[in-house]
Amino acid sequence: MTDASVPPAPGRELTIALDVMGGDRAPDAIVSGAIRWARTAGRRALLVGDPDVIRRLLASGGEDPAAWRIEPAPDVIGMGEHPVQAIRAAPDASICRCAQLVKAGDAHALVSMGNTGAALAAGVLIVGRAAGVDRPGLAAFIPGGSPPTLLLDVGANAEARPEHLRDFGLMGAAYARAVFDTAAPRVAVLSIGEEDTKGSPLTLAAAELLAASPVGCVGNVEPSGLFTGHADVVVCDGFSGNLVVKSIEATAEFAQAELRQAVRQRPYTLPGLAFLFPAFRAVKRRTDYAQYGGVPLLGVNGVVLVGHGRSNALAVANALAAAARSVHRNMVARLTDGLAAIRG
Amino acid sequence: MTDASVPPAPGRELTIALDVMGGDRAPDAIVSGAIRWARTAGRRALLVGDPDVIRRLLASGGEDPAAWRIEPAPDVIGMGEHPVQAIRAAPDASICRCAQLVKAGDAHALVSMGNTGAALAAGVLIVGRAAGVDRPGLAAFIPGGSPPTLLLDVGANAEARPEHLRDFGLMGAAYARAVFDTAAPRVAVLSIGEEDTKGSPLTLAAAELLAASPVGCVGNVEPSGLFTGHADVVVCDGFSGNLVVKSIEATAEFAQAELRQAVRQRPYTLPGLAFLFPAFRAVKRRTDYAQYGGVPLLGVNGVVLVGHGRSNALAVANALAAAARSVHRNMVARLTDGLAAIRG
Repeated sequence: MTDASVPPAPGRELTIALDVMGGDRAPDAIVSGAIRWARTAGRRALLVGDPDVIRRLLASGGEDPAAWRIEPAPDVIGMGEHPVQAIRAAPDASICRCAQLVKAGDAHALVSMGNTGAALAAGVLIVGRAAGVDRPGLAAFIPGGSPPTLLLDVGANAEARPEHLRDFGLMGAAYARAVFDTAAPRVAVLSIGEEDTKGSPLTLAAAELLAASPVGCVGNVEPSGLFTGHADVVVCDGFSGNLVVKSIEATAEFAQAELRQAVRQRPYTLPGLAFLFPAFRAVKRRTDYAQYGGVPLLGVNGVVLVGHGRSNALAVANALAAAARSVHRNMVARLTDGLAAIRG
Repeated sequence: MTDASVPPAPGRELTIALDVMGGDRAPDAIVSGAIRWARTAGRRALLVGDPDVIRRLLASGGEDPAAWRIEPAPDVIGMGEHPVQAIRAAPDASICRCAQLVKAGDAHALVSMGNTGAALAAGVLIVGRAAGVDRPGLAAFIPGGSPPTLLLDVGANAEARPEHLRDFGLMGAAYARAVFDTAAPRVAVLSIGEEDTKGSPLTLAAAELLAASPVGCVGNVEPSGLFTGHADVVVCDGFSGNLVVKSIEATAEFAQAELRQAVRQRPYTLPGLAFLFPAFRAVKRRTDYAQYGGVPLLGVNGVVLVGHGRSNALAVANALAAAARSVHRNMVARLTDGLAAIRG
């Protein structure tokens, strides 16, 4: 047994447990993503799910099933099921097996595109909290700056106290240092005005706690500030963060749908789409969630990456790459060490 | 003196107090908007601000200043000032004069593009709460459906209790009936999942209170549901609502900026913009905040419309038209009657 928070020793294989059964396009897109990553990175994920299905998909993808490690997990937690209840009722579900592998030290990381709540519950309840962490937080990447701005929590918890927001700031800063090489991450609080006096009692208290902590606080940012790189890490309660990332996604989709409809009603504008295609593609590449593949659950004792339910093969491959990067950068140990150092 | 909540009697002039001094483009764009509305609707707003400046702008806009009613208000509340303190310290500020005119029954409505917090404070503290209302709420229009979805509160209060969210639902439903002719408005709660069990203690309790109220509750909607017309009225606390409308706005601006940059870096895609121009314009027309001109503060004893700081003349003209519509539809009285009937 190895400690999941330590990168693989030389000669020992990096193991990422991939939940093959979770996601709107599972299992096909998940296995395709694993094959894609194997061909670009030269590494094979540990495939967790129905072995027969996995072998068939590997073969039809041009792979030799015998060359892959497969962990049988007959059950699946559906997208609509209640996370905690489902985790407890179905310990043999693919996401639970993934988390058990990480907990046991048999995998360094887990990647799932399935029921987000179930993945979070598996991370917190099975993988377990990292040392010194009260509330793990889910961190989203907001495009615009380089590296992207980290926003957390975006939904691991529905409620938070000021101390939790401060801890999200400490964890986010430790992540930015470990994975993005940001020397001195700027931490801010998400609020409804940039002035220090604007916000809710929660955000005002969190800003004070952060300002008194070693990472400091560069103030409040409004949603527009998420895109401008004004801060490296922005903290909020999980309810607010979830609303914000879903609002961003919904607006982007609405804008695309409106433009499509406007073009359909004006066929003479259609050539514009052809001309602009390279520009649209460039924007998509810079902003697509598939670029990061998934969002990390920070504060658990292993690398846990949760992807979008609609993830395609590219998103799966990128999530595997991001998970590998976090493992090699020793993210979990640096995060807990960072937290311990900060807290004295 | 007349009751501001009753439409003008036949022969008596509709009076809308327009805060000429508030807004990023004030006073020029505000006076231009008043002129624009005067020429399309045949009605002149009551212009509140510095008389010399107003007369000069009217003259340079081709108007006879003597034909307009002007209410002197020498002071201005800046965009960065603390709302409540500023309102108290500067009773002669243009926004305060507007509110005093409504309070005294000398104006039926007020329209301001200035400091939002100051306009809300003037509405609540000077115009005053409508009968039976504990917390007025600011209602935004989310495009997509027809009529648009009303989201409230989007920032009149930083915190709310479940009863306040229920009251926002009652007020929003009364507004949709009065102004949009929606026979049976569907009221929903903004949350982070569509399932009834998903949300914060606040949203779960509010959904229960609404379900037990005469307007009922059609369940939770996520941000994506705001654009699809799944509900006519969606309620939330002011902090969440403000984050959501600012996220929507920030995403739309970010997407435009990204596309512009991608085109600039690929000059061969430029003709696409020319071809697509009519489609972009159609989308903008359907989604621009200037279409509604401003958002109504519901639950105060008069029509109070607050516009975007960046409002141009079109937004001002549309806000004046929307305010006139609310007055003629007797919105305030119908809203308070509706609330009273609902509460028995």
